[in-house]
Amino acid sequence: MSAEVSFEDLVAAHARIAGHARRTPVLASSTVDSLTGARVFFKCENLQRMGAFKFRGAYNALAQLPVEQKRRGVIAYSSGNHAQAVALAGRMLGVRATIVMPADAPPVKLAATRGYGAEVITYDPQRESRETLARRIGEERGLTVIPPYDHPHIIAGQGTAAKELIEDAGALDVLLVPCGGGGLLSGCALAAHRMLPDCRVIGVEPAAGDDATRSFRTRTLHTVHNPDTIADGARTSSLGKLTFPLVLRYVSDMLTVTDEELLRSMFFVWERMKLVVEPTGALAACALLENKFEAAGLRIGVVLSGGNVDLDWAARQRLR
Amino acid sequence: MSAEVSFEDLVAAHARIAGHARRTPVLASSTVDSLTGARVFFKCENLQRMGAFKFRGAYNALAQLPVEQKRRGVIAYSSGNHAQAVALAGRMLGVRATIVMPADAPPVKLAATRGYGAEVITYDPQRESRETLARRIGEERGLTVIPPYDHPHIIAGQGTAAKELIEDAGALDVLLVPCGGGGLLSGCALAAHRMLPDCRVIGVEPAAGDDATRSFRTRTLHTVHNPDTIADGARTSSLGKLTFPLVLRYVSDMLTVTDEELLRSMFFVWERMKLVVEPTGALAACALLENKFEAAGLRIGVVLSGGNVDLDWAARQRLR
Repeated sequence: MSAEVSFEDLVAAHARIAGHARRTPVLASSTVDSLTGARVFFKCENLQRMGAFKFRGAYNALAQLPVEQKRRGVIAYSSGNHAQAVALAGRMLGVRATIVMPADAPPVKLAATRGYGAEVITYDPQRESRETLARRIGEERGLTVIPPYDHPHIIAGQGTAAKELIEDAGALDVLLVPCGGGGLLSGCALAAHRMLPDCRVIGVEPAAGDDATRSFRTRTLHTVHNPDTIADGARTSSLGKLTFPLVLRYVSDMLTVTDEELLRSMFFVWERMKLVVEPTGALAACALLENKFEAAGLRIGVVLSGGNVDLDWAARQRLR
Repeated sequence: MSAEVSFEDLVAAHARIAGHARRTPVLASSTVDSLTGARVFFKCENLQRMGAFKFRGAYNALAQLPVEQKRRGVIAYSSGNHAQAVALAGRMLGVRATIVMPADAPPVKLAATRGYGAEVITYDPQRESRETLARRIGEERGLTVIPPYDHPHIIAGQGTAAKELIEDAGALDVLLVPCGGGGLLSGCALAAHRMLPDCRVIGVEPAAGDDATRSFRTRTLHTVHNPDTIADGARTSSLGKLTFPLVLRYVSDMLTVTDEELLRSMFFVWERMKLVVEPTGALAACALLENKFEAAGLRIGVVLSGGNVDLDWAARQRLR
């Protein structure tokens, strides 16, 4: 396995997931266009299988495992969308999936992951590191670890979202992508670099967890510890060994948004576009809607990366 | 103007609205398919311009007005989606729109209708009938009345939703359509009758306002007065002079759902399909999700008719 990720890998990933992942729609909004003065194309990964782009990378990674590794099964650590993505891809490919999740994860997420047929192992997040635990169980049981973002097959899979967006929308001046561990961002930037060399790719992360922005600006890897943000998909501690160099090479800029701005944008997308997006899924839209850069006159792609949000939580936020 | 509506009128309407109305996506859900044992295709009219199918009919009607009537302007009475549809179609076609709305309509709806450039005239719903008022103002000012459903151009326009759904999904055994005044239902039934003669078209309305179901069963027009249901788009008092005969002729059955069932289905669509639908917009999905008929093994089309719901109201319902 090479640590490099090429555009050819991304094209191969796209062929591999075709007919398994959904080709999600690209939607426009005249309200957004008139508010921003831009022409905006939203890639609706909230409508992807299991509700987030994560399925692309997980399926691409599991489909490429050698037969023997497929037979033994895989293990992943995640409290969120990656868990469900590996569980679902495993079920579709006949690969047994074990997921390490914090014991205090929302019951609905534990149930959803089990619902996709995965074995869930819970741990105490105060006492153990999930990476260490997953690696140990993986070794004991002979399971292949499927990391959430820092893996060439994951990155290539996530990048197919941008490939489809560009195929459907045509030329773009700017592509806005949410950033957590950088799997989606680096994959999308790789796609845009080759398909639209003049397109500026901008990563967006929560202000409370601005490690990627600081890493990008200083060209040195910064980390954060469990940042306090509603964007739970972007609470990752840092970019990865693979994603950081790709971000440095292919991303044009990074922007941050506050939780207050993010919540406003999330509900804007619900209310005006009729799409349920989760806070992390609204990061890229938020940078546009909160005027974080000069958008007027441009053709802009926005990745709405996921829609897995607890409705009770959202209702409480709405009525605060 | 003929009172008949033919499939050819519907085809002409489709050509007329092309490029102006959105061709909304048809989405599948593996969750719904495995819950029901059916293969289900959702026509996402919540993603239509102004958030509901109503734009189709309004644009089709306004586009066909003679030049002199266009110049004078139009008037419509509605507290909901028809108001915004006529306002938006008017703006796009350069036709001045006047909308009669109850003084106690939600401020957000008054603002949205004005936002589309319409003049809003409010009235006291306790003292006046909006139909009478609209007709009087229309005569005084020389404005053409655009009725919400009982008009051949409106019916033909709404039916284009089913035409697109059938074109995209292929053969269907059942087509489920929400029913208020019957404009959408009769238009969709007309489309299905010609495109898929063996497809059963089923209308769905709220149990509290089951006038169309009773009218259908007895073949005599029944009316209700201001029924108490959260499906505000289906609070119409009866089917119309045009829609009733079309429903009798082309619809196979009618089903009703309670508000409790409707709310559950509405949030199911939000949570599992990531689509914001309004209560009326979830009527057809509800008949399926609440097992109101034998669905297993069938190919089923479902019209999600709109997504214009007040988020604060929905949040309160969710947390009750």
